[in-house]
Amino acid sequence: MKKMTKTAMTLALGLGLVTSASFAASHASVTNKAVAARHAQMQMLAYHTGILGSIAKGEMEYNSAMVDAAATNLRDLAKLDGTTMWLPGTEQGAVDGSRAKAEMWSNFPDVIAKVTDLANAADAMIGAADQAAVGAAMGAIGGSCKACHEAYRGPKT
Amino acid sequence: MKKMTKTAMTLALGLGLVTSASFAASHASVTNKAVAARHAQMQMLAYHTGILGSIAKGEMEYNSAMVDAAATNLRDLAKLDGTTMWLPGTEQGAVDGSRAKAEMWSNFPDVIAKVTDLANAADAMIGAADQAAVGAAMGAIGGSCKACHEAYRGPKT
Repeated sequence: MKKMTKTAMTLALGLGLVTSASFAASHASVTNKAVAARHAQMQMLAYHTGILGSIAKGEMEYNSAMVDAAATNLRDLAKLDGTTMWLPGTEQGAVDGSRAKAEMWSNFPDVIAKVTDLANAADAMIGAADQAAVGAAMGAIGGSCKACHEAYRGPKT
Repeated sequence: MKKMTKTAMTLALGLGLVTSASFAASHASVTNKAVAARHAQMQMLAYHTGILGSIAKGEMEYNSAMVDAAATNLRDLAKLDGTTMWLPGTEQGAVDGSRAKAEMWSNFPDVIAKVTDLANAADAMIGAADQAAVGAAMGAIGGSCKACHEAYRGPKT
């Protein structure tokens, strides 16, 4: 928990600094790449959640090494420093392909809280000892995905 | 350094276990998604290397928070547990879109050594105090990318 809190603070401080520097404003190609990079991050989050979900549902055989690897990756992907990818000025409507609501930037402490929920839920999955334990730990992971998407992901266009 | 070594050992042990379990053999859709997930990982590695390279070349203004965030993400992306994505049976020719040579799996300790070189090179970038320092730290990052690609990435098809 201590480590998570430190990461969240680092993220929040980092974004404040980047916002004030208007880092992204004059780099159109950078903003497009930033959106692509965070889509890659989301794809990797979905991939690792998918492995755990498949094991929970019995579609994939339980394997403790795979559960721990997938959960650890999920946690560490959630802990990446978002300031490199969630650049100010890259909300839906401002950059092609973005579905990030502008509220992500105005409510940034809440975004950090929600992504920290995901990191903590993934951390709690590590060590799940059988299929039932994986299933029991899935709820918090799925809930944190949903909470952030409902609050901060705009409609498909 | 101690943490890196532990990560590498975890990876190696994990892959051994996954190989012996033939985890991927009967999951065709899983192998396609695994290739897509590692492409996403490569895209994120390239994105963060690109930020650092742009700062080194003076195309993007030096910003210590951005340098540290990009270098930290690069390091942590290099340290993800590869066993979830580099599934046995996903070499070039076996799965659409894969350019991974079969030697990746037969020379796995060397793959771990090379990806650890990248993680260490990214770690050494953290704290680079100005544009020149970023430039000086780029060589080891680029060198580790090149070394692994030359050894283990097959031709474009």
